[in-house]
Amino acid sequence: PIHDEHLFIVVHQVYELWFRQILYELDSVCELLNIEVNESQADIVMNLLNRIVRILQLMVDQVMVLETMSPLDFRAFRDYLGTSSGFQSVQFRLLENKLGIKKDNRIQYAGVDYKEVFEGDHRKEVEKSENKPTVLQLVDHWLSRTPGLEENGFNFWRRFAFAVTDFLNSLEQQTKKSTDQSSKEELLREREKLFDTFESILVREKHEELVNQGVRRLSYKAMQGALMISLYSDVPRFSQPYQFLQLLMDLESLLTKWRYNHVLLVQRMIGSKAGTGGSSGYQYLRSTVSDRYKVFNDLFNLSTFLIPREYIPPLTRSMAKRLSVGNTLM
Amino acid sequence: PIHDEHLFIVVHQVYELWFRQILYELDSVCELLNIEVNESQADIVMNLLNRIVRILQLMVDQVMVLETMSPLDFRAFRDYLGTSSGFQSVQFRLLENKLGIKKDNRIQYAGVDYKEVFEGDHRKEVEKSENKPTVLQLVDHWLSRTPGLEENGFNFWRRFAFAVTDFLNSLEQQTKKSTDQSSKEELLREREKLFDTFESILVREKHEELVNQGVRRLSYKAMQGALMISLYSDVPRFSQPYQFLQLLMDLESLLTKWRYNHVLLVQRMIGSKAGTGGSSGYQYLRSTVSDRYKVFNDLFNLSTFLIPREYIPPLTRSMAKRLSVGNTLM
Amino acid sequence: PIHDEHLFIVVHQVYELWFRQILYELDSVCELLNIEVNESQADIVMNLLNRIVRILQLMVDQVMVLETMSPLDFRAFRDYLGTSSGFQSVQFRLLENKLGIKKDNRIQYAGVDYKEVFEGDHRKEVEKSENKPTVLQLVDHWLSRTPGLEENGFNFWRRFAFAVTDFLNSLEQQTKKSTDQSSKEELLREREKLFDTFESILVREKHEELVNQGVRRLSYKAMQGALMISLYSDVPRFSQPYQFLQLLMDLESLLTKWRYNHVLLVQRMIGSKAGTGGSSGYQYLRSTVSDRYKVFNDLFNLSTFLIPREYIPPLTRSMAKRLSVGNTLM
Amino acid sequence: PIHDEHLFIVVHQVYELWFRQILYELDSVCELLNIEVNESQADIVMNLLNRIVRILQLMVDQVMVLETMSPLDFRAFRDYLGTSSGFQSVQFRLLENKLGIKKDNRIQYAGVDYKEVFEGDHRKEVEKSENKPTVLQLVDHWLSRTPGLEENGFNFWRRFAFAVTDFLNSLEQQTKKSTDQSSKEELLREREKLFDTFESILVREKHEELVNQGVRRLSYKAMQGALMISLYSDVPRFSQPYQFLQLLMDLESLLTKWRYNHVLLVQRMIGSKAGTGGSSGYQYLRSTVSDRYKVFNDLFNLSTFLIPREYIPPLTRSMAKRLSVGNTLM
Repeated sequence: PIHDEHLFIVVHQVYELWFRQILYELDSVCELLNIEVNESQADIVMNLLNRIVRILQLMVDQVMVLETMSPLDFRAFRDYLGTSSGFQSVQFRLLENKLGIKKDNRIQYAGVDYKEVFEGDHRKEVEKSENKPTVLQLVDHWLSRTPGLEENGFNFWRRFAFAVTDFLNSLEQQTKKSTDQSSKEELLREREKLFDTFESILVREKHEELVNQGVRRLSYKAMQGALMISLYSDVPRFSQPYQFLQLLMDLESLLTKWRYNHVLLVQRMIGSKAGTGGSSGYQYLRSTVSDRYKVFNDLFNLSTFLIPREYIPPLTRSMAKRLSVGNTLM
Repeated sequence: PIHDEHLFIVVHQVYELWFRQILYELDSVCELLNIEVNESQADIVMNLLNRIVRILQLMVDQVMVLETMSPLDFRAFRDYLGTSSGFQSVQFRLLENKLGIKKDNRIQYAGVDYKEVFEGDHRKEVEKSENKPTVLQLVDHWLSRTPGLEENGFNFWRRFAFAVTDFLNSLEQQTKKSTDQSSKEELLREREKLFDTFESILVREKHEELVNQGVRRLSYKAMQGALMISLYSDVPRFSQPYQFLQLLMDLESLLTKWRYNHVLLVQRMIGSKAGTGGSSGYQYLRSTVSDRYKVFNDLFNLSTFLIPREYIPPLTRSMAKRLSVGNTLM
Repeated sequence: PIHDEHLFIVVHQVYELWFRQILYELDSVCELLNIEVNESQADIVMNLLNRIVRILQLMVDQVMVLETMSPLDFRAFRDYLGTSSGFQSVQFRLLENKLGIKKDNRIQYAGVDYKEVFEGDHRKEVEKSENKPTVLQLVDHWLSRTPGLEENGFNFWRRFAFAVTDFLNSLEQQTKKSTDQSSKEELLREREKLFDTFESILVREKHEELVNQGVRRLSYKAMQGALMISLYSDVPRFSQPYQFLQLLMDLESLLTKWRYNHVLLVQRMIGSKAGTGGSSGYQYLRSTVSDRYKVFNDLFNLSTFLIPREYIPPLTRSMAKRLSVGNTLM
Repeated sequence: PIHDEHLFIVVHQVYELWFRQILYELDSVCELLNIEVNESQADIVMNLLNRIVRILQLMVDQVMVLETMSPLDFRAFRDYLGTSSGFQSVQFRLLENKLGIKKDNRIQYAGVDYKEVFEGDHRKEVEKSENKPTVLQLVDHWLSRTPGLEENGFNFWRRFAFAVTDFLNSLEQQTKKSTDQSSKEELLREREKLFDTFESILVREKHEELVNQGVRRLSYKAMQGALMISLYSDVPRFSQPYQFLQLLMDLESLLTKWRYNHVLLVQRMIGSKAGTGGSSGYQYLRSTVSDRYKVFNDLFNLSTFLIPREYIPPLTRSMAKRLSVGNTLM
C-alpha cells in the first residue's frame, strides 16, 4: 500500500462532500427562482449563492494539498496506460448540467460521449440531469421579466438604441475634429468596431446568429434585462438583481479557476505527452478551461455594451417611482 | 473626481511595489545561480523563491479588490475608445523578460511590438532586459551540470534509454496477453503513443525540432538533468534541486493564475467585444494565459517521461555514494 | 546593507497604502451614515465596506511574506535594545480612532500614552482624530432609529420583554417535568443564568453598568435596534441592515486576525522575553488581541439574546406593511 | 427539517476527514522521528509536515463557510440550553494529545475532565492517546541530540554563555557612554532585563523552574539544540532542521488560528453570555487560544535569545567540517 493513496482518497471524499453541498444549495436556488421570488426569498437566494461561492473558494485552494504528492507515487497507484482521463465524478457532471452546460458545447474526449464512463444508476442520473431546467434557463426567464422591458411601457430597448446612436454620433463628431491623420483613422476604425459591437446586440438576427454559433447563451430578451440592470444598478429596485448577477459570475469564475488548478495538477502528475499525436488528458482538460464551458459568459461580456453615464436614457417619472423601492429578484 | 479612481491608483501602486520586490529578489537569485552555488547559498535561493511565491499569492488575490469597482465608474475615468490595451507596466515586462519570455514567443497586439507603448528611459530599460541572462537560461545551465549526466561516467541518459525500452517491451508483452480484441487495440495505440513520447525526448533531433517549434524551451542536456532529478528525487543530493524545480513551477503557476484573474477582471470591466471583427484587449490578454507564456512548461511536462519505480536504473555504488550527501543546487 | 531590509520596507509601504485606502473608504462611509441614508446610498455603503473587507483579507495574508525574514537579519537592521515596541503607524492609529477605540480602552505600553511615539503634525493629526465622530457612534445613532422601537408605536422592546418571560417560563415548566435530579439541577442553574443574561440587556441600569465597566459599547437604544434587526432579518426592510451588521463584524474579525498574525510574527522575530520581569512588546501586542479592542463586540454577542423562532413577537399588520418594502440603511 | 442543518453536517464531515488525514500523516512523522532519521527520510518528514500545513490552511478558511448560517436557524437545530459546549470531536482530542497538550495544561470546562463527553471506545481511545509518545517529546529528544552540544566536544552551551557575557558587557560599556541621564537609566533597565532573560535559559535551575510553572515545555538540553540550530541556520547541516522548526511553528500557528476562527463563529452563533455569572462556552473556547495550548511555544520564543551575528561563537575547524555537508534531521 502506497502512503500517498490515503491522501488521494481523502481529498476526493472531501470534493464529493462539497459537490453534494453545492448541488443541495443549487436545488434550493432553482426552486426559488422557479416561482415568483418575493423579497425575503431573494435574500435566501443571495445567501445560498454566497455560500456556494465560499465553498468553491475552498475547493480552488484544495488543489494545493494534492500538489504535495510525488508523481512517481501517484503513478504507482494509478494506471500508467489507463484511460482514466481526468475527472469522472458523477456529481461534478450533475453540477455542470444543472448550471446549464449543454451536451453540444462539451468537448469530446477520445471520441466518446462524456456519459460513457458512467454505468447503471449513475448513467441514468446524469442522463436525466440533461433534461432538467438549468440555472441558466431560470436566470434567462427571470431576466426576461425585468421591469422596464415592456414594449408598451418604458420600452428600455428602444430608448437604449437611441442612446447608442447618440453616443456613436458624438464619437464621430469628435473624430472629425481630430487633425492628426493617423490617429483619426484609428479612431474611425475603433468607432466602426463599436458600431458592429452594438449592432450585434441590438439587431435580433445578429444576436440569434451568435446564439446559434454558441457564442451567446442568453436569449435576446434576457440580454436586454441584464443590460438594463447593469446600467441602472444604482436604482434601489435593481440593487439586489445586480448583486445576483455578480454572484453568478463569481461562482463561474471560481469554477473555472478550479478547472485550471486541476489542469495544472494533472500536468504535474502525469504530464501532457506533448509532442505525440492524439490529444492527451491534459489537453482535453485544458480545453475545458474556456468560454465554451462558461454558461454565464454573456454576463461577463455585458460591459462591452456600456455607454457613458451621460448617455444612459433617463428614467421616466413613473418608471423612477416603480424602481424606487424594494430590492427583489422578481 | 470619481470615487473609485483612488482605489484603482492605490491597487496599482501596490502592484508596482510587489513587482519591484520580486525583481529585487530575482536579481539575487540570478546572481547566485550564475556562480557555482554552494549549500548555504542554495538555502538562500530557496528562501528567496519561496518569498516570491508568497508575494505572488497575494497578487493573485488582490484582483478581487478591484472587482468591487463598478464598470460604469471604471469607464468614466478610463477612456471609452482609448487604445489602453490592458497591461502596460514597465516592471511587469522586465519581470517577463527576466524570467525568459522571448520576443518571438510573445503574441502581438494590434500588430505592434510590445515595447511600443513605452518611451524614453522606460523603452531603453525594457530593450536592455531582452538581452540579459534570464532565469530560464541560468536554470538550463545549472540543469546541464547535474551530476550523473557525464557520458564517460554514470551516463544517466544511456541507462534511461535502456530502461524505457525495457518498460515499453514489457507493456507490449502484457498487451499481447490480452484476449479482448478491442481493448488490445486500444492498448497498442496507447503503447505507440508512449513510444513517440519517449522518442521525442530521447532522440536529439526530435527534441530540437520541438525546441525550434517553440514547444520546448530547455536544451537537450538540461532536459536530461531535470528528468534525472525527478526520478531520483529521494536521493539526498537531489532533494533540494527537486524542491527548487517545484518552486519554479509554483512561481509560474501563480503568475499564470494572476494573468487569468486579470483577464476576468478586464472582461468584467470592459467586456470582450465578442462578435466584432478584430481582436480585443480581452482576447489578447486571454491568449497570454497559455503555454507560450510559461517559460518552465517543460518542467510541468516532466511527468510525461516518468517510468515505474521498478524500471528506474539503479545507481552504481560510486554514484550512490556521490549522491548520498548534501542537498545543494550545484 | 542587509538584503532583507528591502522586503521590510516594501511590505510596510504596502501596508501604508492599504491603510490609506481603508481610511479613504471609511471617510465616505461615515459621511453617508451621517446623513439620512436612502436606498441607493445604502448600496454604496455596503459596497465600500465589502471592499474594505477584501483589503483586510489581503493584509491578514501579507504577514506570511514577512515570515520569510530571518530573525538574525531582522535584528541586524532593527535595534537590539531599542524601544521600538511593535506598531507605530500613524495611519493605523487614525484607523483605530475612526472605528471608535477610545483612549480609555487602550492598554498602556511602558506607562506612556500611545500618542507619545508621534511628533509634530503626526501627533496633532492623531490627537484630532480622537474627537471626531467614530464609525461606532454613527452606527449607534443609526441603530437607535430602527423602525419599530418607538414606544408609542410597535414598541418592540416591551413585546420582546414579554416574549423572553414566556420563553423562560416554558423552560421552567419543562425543567420541572424532568425526573432525573442531577440534570434537573443543572437545567435550573442554566435557566438562572439565562435569566441574568436577559436581565442584563432588558434592564437599563444593568446595561449601563456594563457600559460603564467597558464591557458594552452600544447604547441601550442601539442594542434594541440591533436585536430587532437580528430577530427580523428575513423581513425585506431589515435585509440590508442585517448584512450591514455582518460586514461590520467581518471587518472587525479581520482586523483582529491581522493583529494576531502580527503578534505571532513579532514573537518569531524578537521573541517574548518570557521569564523576565516587566511586560514585553510581544505581551503588549498580545493583549490588544482582545475584546477590549473590538468596538463592535456587542454585535458579536447579539446571539446571546436570541429566543426560539416561535417566541419572537409577531409583527402587527401595520408594522409588517411598514417593513415589507425596501432594504435601506435608514 | 431545517435547511442549514445539511451544511452543518457536511462541514463537520469534512473536518473529520481532514483530522483523519492529519492524524495519518502525524503517525508517519512520529514513526520516522522515533528512529534515527537519515536524509531521505528527513525529506519525507518535511513533505508530510508541509502537507499538514496546507490542510490546516484550508481548515482555517473553512470556518467562513459556516458563517453563512443564520444564528436563529442554528439555534433551531441545536439545543438552546444544552451543554454542547463547543468542540467534542474525538479526532481533535487525539490530535491535541498526539501533539503534546498535557492533561494538566488543559483548561477545565464546567469543572469536568475533557474526556467526560466521550463514551465507550471513544473514551478509551482518547485515554490511551494520553500515554503515547507525543510529537513534542520526539522533537525534544531529537533536539537534544543536535551535533555540537557534546560537553566533551564543541560544547556549544559553554561558548554561548561566554558570548552572551561579551554581548551584555559591550551593552554596558555603550550605556555608560550615554550622556543623557534619562535614556541612560532606561538602557540600564533594558540591559537588566536582558540579563534576566539570558539567565532564564542559561541557568538550569531557572529553566526548570519555568518548566515546572508550565511556561516552558522543552528540556534544558533541547532548548540548547533549538538555539544552536537557530544561530547557525545558514550552515548546510542545519538548513533542513531549521526548516523543520519553522514548519512546526507554521502548524501550530494555523491550529491556533483555527481555534480563534472557531471562537468567533461560536460567538456569532450563540453569543457569549457576557454579563452573567459562570463561564460560557465562548469564554472556555476563547481561553484555549492561548500560549497554554501552544506546545511549541518555546520555538516561537527562541528569538528572545538571539545575539548579534558578530557575537555568535565561530565554529571550530572540525565542527565547521562536520556541519558542512548534509541537511538531515539526525
